Formats: sequence, C-alpha cells, structure tokens
Amino acid sequence: MVKGRVAVITGIPGAGKSTVLNELKRIAGKIGKGIRVVNFGTEMVKIAEQKSGVLHRDEIRHKPIPFQNQLQTEAAKEIAKMTGEGSIVIVDTHMMVRTESGYWAGLPSHVITELKPDLFILIEADPEEIFKRRSTDKTRMRDKVLMSDIREEIEFSRAFAATCGTLTGAPVKIVRNPAGRQVEAAEEILKLL
Amino acid sequence: MVKGRVAVITGIPGAGKSTVLNELKRIAGKIGKGIRVVNFGTEMVKIAEQKSGVLHRDEIRHKPIPFQNQLQTEAAKEIAKMTGEGSIVIVDTHMMVRTESGYWAGLPSHVITELKPDLFILIEADPEEIFKRRSTDKTRMRDKVLMSDIREEIEFSRAFAATCGTLTGAPVKIVRNPAGRQVEAAEEILKLL
Amino acid sequence: MVKGRVAVITGIPGAGKSTVLNELKRIAGKIGKGIRVVNFGTEMVKIAEQKSGVLHRDEIRHKPIPFQNQLQTEAAKEIAKMTGEGSIVIVDTHMMVRTESGYWAGLPSHVITELKPDLFILIEADPEEIFKRRSTDKTRMRDKVLMSDIREEIEFSRAFAATCGTLTGAPVKIVRNPAGRQVEAAEEILKLL
Repeated sequence: MVKGRVAVITGIPGAGKSTVLNELKRIAGKIGKGIRVVNFGTEMVKIAEQKSGVLHRDEIRHKPIPFQNQLQTEAAKEIAKMTGEGSIVIVDTHMMVRTESGYWAGLPSHVITELKPDLFILIEADPEEIFKRRSTDKTRMRDKVLMSDIREEIEFSRAFAATCGTLTGAPVKIVRNPAGRQVEAAEEILKLL
Repeated sequence: MVKGRVAVITGIPGAGKSTVLNELKRIAGKIGKGIRVVNFGTEMVKIAEQKSGVLHRDEIRHKPIPFQNQLQTEAAKEIAKMTGEGSIVIVDTHMMVRTESGYWAGLPSHVITELKPDLFILIEADPEEIFKRRSTDKTRMRDKVLMSDIREEIEFSRAFAATCGTLTGAPVKIVRNPAGRQVEAAEEILKLL
Repeated sequence: MVKGRVAVITGIPGAGKSTVLNELKRIAGKIGKGIRVVNFGTEMVKIAEQKSGVLHRDEIRHKPIPFQNQLQTEAAKEIAKMTGEGSIVIVDTHMMVRTESGYWAGLPSHVITELKPDLFILIEADPEEIFKRRSTDKTRMRDKVLMSDIREEIEFSRAFAATCGTLTGAPVKIVRNPAGRQVEAAEEILKLL
C-alpha cells in the first residue's frame, strides 16, 4: 500500500484481532516496515479529555449519542491527518459493536467520510474456534456464549463491511486467523500494506 | 430512549410485527409510557390524498417510481416533525419489500436522510415458524411459500439494516418473536425506548 | 421498464451472466424490444484511451486507485447519457470483484451517484453448480476452487447489492440461472425491462 494511506483492522471478540495486531507490529518492526497502529477508541478518549475532561471509555459510553458521534468524527479527522506524515496508518477498531441496544456500526458514514480508509480488514475465525476462545476468556466476564450469536455477529460484520466498501470504493479483505496461525495472518496483512 | 426520538420497527411477513406492535401499544398504555406509533404507508397515503386525491395504497403502487419516492420523502419529513412534540415515535414499516421486480429497500437513503431514525428494530422468528404462520394465513392469498425464500428475506433484511446502521450511526436490534412470546418481545422493545 | 432507464446486470464467475446476456440480446432482437447492452469495463477502457492512451484492461488495473475511480465515474456518466436516447440501457458489470486485496464493490457510491440505476439484477446459481462450472472452465486459469469461497462471494454480492438498493431506492432482483435454464432466466429479465 502507498504510504500515507489508511487500513482499518477489525474483528469480533474471539477472532484474535489483538493477537494478530501484536504479531503485525512485531514483524513490521523486524523488517523495518513503517506502519503506525492507532486505536480508534483511544483517540476518542484523548479528544474527550481535551474537550471536556472525560477520562474513561465507560464515561464516553454514558454520554448522549450526538456527543459520541461528534467524538468519533473528530477522532477520524485526527487519524486522517496522520497519513500526511507519510506512514501507513493501521486503525484498530470494530466493524460492529454488539450491545444490549443492538448492533452499532463501528464505522458509520460520519466516520468513513473523514477517515477515508483505503482498505477494510476483517479478521475472522471459525465460529467454533471463536466459541472456544470466548468460553475460556475469564477476563471479559461475558454473558453466556451462543454459537448462533457468533454466526450472527460474523454475518452482520460482513454486511456492515460491504456497506463500507460501497461507500468508499475500498476493498474488504477477510483474513482468516485459525488457532496458532497468527503469524500467517499478520504476514498476509503485511503483504497488503 | 430520549423523548423526541424515532425508532423504526420492521419485520418480514410472518415475523409477527403486528402482533408485537399491538402488545407494545397495550403495555405502553398500561404503564403510561408515551409512545406514538405511526404507520409509514398510512402517512404516504395521507400525503398522496392531499397532493393529488390518490386514495388507496394500490393506486400509489401503480404510480411512477419518482412519484412514490417523493411521497416517501414527504412522509419521512412529516413523521420527523412529530418528534418535536416530545413523544417517542415508533415507525411501523418494512426494512425490505419483496415484489416481482425484486427486493426494495423499505428505508432507502432518501427516507433515512429525512427520518433520521435513532434505532432500527428487526422483529425476527425462525424460518420454520414463519413458514408455518405464512402457510396458515388465509387472508393474504400468498404464492406458494418456500423455506429458501424466507431465509433469503431474512438475510436481505439484515443486509439492508446494516446499511441503515452505517448511514445513520444508529443501532440495529434484532428482537426474537417465537410462537407465544409476543409479550416478551414487546417488553424487550419497551426497554430500549 | 420505462425507456430511458438503466438496469445493471451482475453475476459472480460461474453464475452464467454472459450466457444469460447473450440469450437476452437474442430474444430482445427477435421480439423487437429496444435494449442496449453496455459493458462497464469496455466503457472504462474507451475513456482511458481517450484520456491517456491506455489500451488494455490490465493496464488500467495497474494504475493508481484514484485514477481508476475517476475512470469509473466518467464511464458511469457516459452510460447515463445513453438513457437520453430513449432505449433501455443494460449495464453488464460486477456487483463485487474478488482480488488478492479483497472484495471490491463493482458499484461503489461514486459510480451509483452518476449511473442512477433503476434496477439491480443478480444472476445466481447454486454454489454446487457454480463450482462445477468453474472447475471445468479451462480458459480462466483459476486458482483452486473452494465451495466456501463461492458461498462467501454470493453472500458478499448480496450485501453489496443491498447497499446499492438502499442508496438508490431501486430494487434488487435475484434471477436464478440453473443449468440449461438460460432462456427462462433471460425471459424473466425481459419481463422486468
């Protein structure tokens, strides 16, 4: 990928996004590939702090939706500016966020318009694999894990991604991350960058 | 949901949208929750009457598409105005309409732009359940019911909903409505409002 | 369909789009139905030639993305002009293009905005049928064919199509093309035009 461009990396919980991202940073460092990984949520918190002294992600989540949308737009603008510095910017974020009130687009049109991504990556694993990872993940204090929920999340993530692809004209790439294959997944992503 | 906001409720034929909506109105009335349920098609007919003396839904369906789109836009504007009155507006409509000429978005971008929904609800049931309901529904004079068609309709409704979610930034909530559980479905929706 | 309008016809490799299009042209000719079939890629090449002496599709594919997007926009504008001539314009193109860098929308928003299609047709066949057609297609020098890939392509094509339907308000029609039924498929399309 040409320097100064933006790749978005997403994956539902249990798909192994963090693992792949860590591998990606490690390999890129080793081979001297200039990438900059930015966490979208962290950028939002930074802007919230500057604007109004909000300090935690959880505080943002309890603010009115228009405020949150405004934060998203500003975070997208800030990240888009980073491409001016010539590096490849990797945005660590969500294609879809599942909450009690439904599936939220992680990349709604007001974000896409500012961020102008050049590539959308969906890190995926088999529903059975995701089920196993979620079931053994003690840190997340999840609700009961259901296979049908996992399948639905994968389906919705893809549908949201297709919309992103139509709105921007950028490709949607599915990167498979089966158990123990995070190095291969990271290498596959590196080839695209 | 904050008063003065819009929730869209949709469901394919046989998902039980009307049953859940009736339950929703009943419970909301009982507990004194201020909601206003508006049928999108009825609003279109009202506007058509005022504009040009068109009286029936079937007449609208035979008008040119640009005329129908214009009606949709104006109906969306009228409904959006109702939110100014402070109540929660529930819009009873379709996420997707199946006709001989294909799947039509019930909430195309020209409607969404004016309506600005804060929540999209898809009432869903198992394809087998929908099949049973459609097969025994004598009033609708349907064509032969096929399980594959039902699955396709559910899939397309979700894909249309994901687009709505990206365009607006509002969440897409799936509310399950299995046989005999319309009260639970209505209560789940009430909690979101 | 009213003269002066645009129908887009798409299908993944192996769905039988070319076969159906040929049948469509043959039948339309026989019954004297005025349709004009335009290949979107060919229009892009024509414009590329006029602009910069680019001669082959493969050359275009190696140009920077913004250049390709510009070509797409101009091709869409040219095709939209053809509707002024009163005929029904059939655009032969892709809903989704699979490459190493991911799934690309064949009809991204910058194309849709100019082309303003009135109908999106997805020619589909069973994954098993597509598998068989791809496996025996010697001319395309394909990679190994996987059933899971075919299912994924069908799913993404539908998701992209749903976005197109929401953005334009035009219907998405699935036309089934099982083995040996291309005449029926073409006749089904003709009825829509």
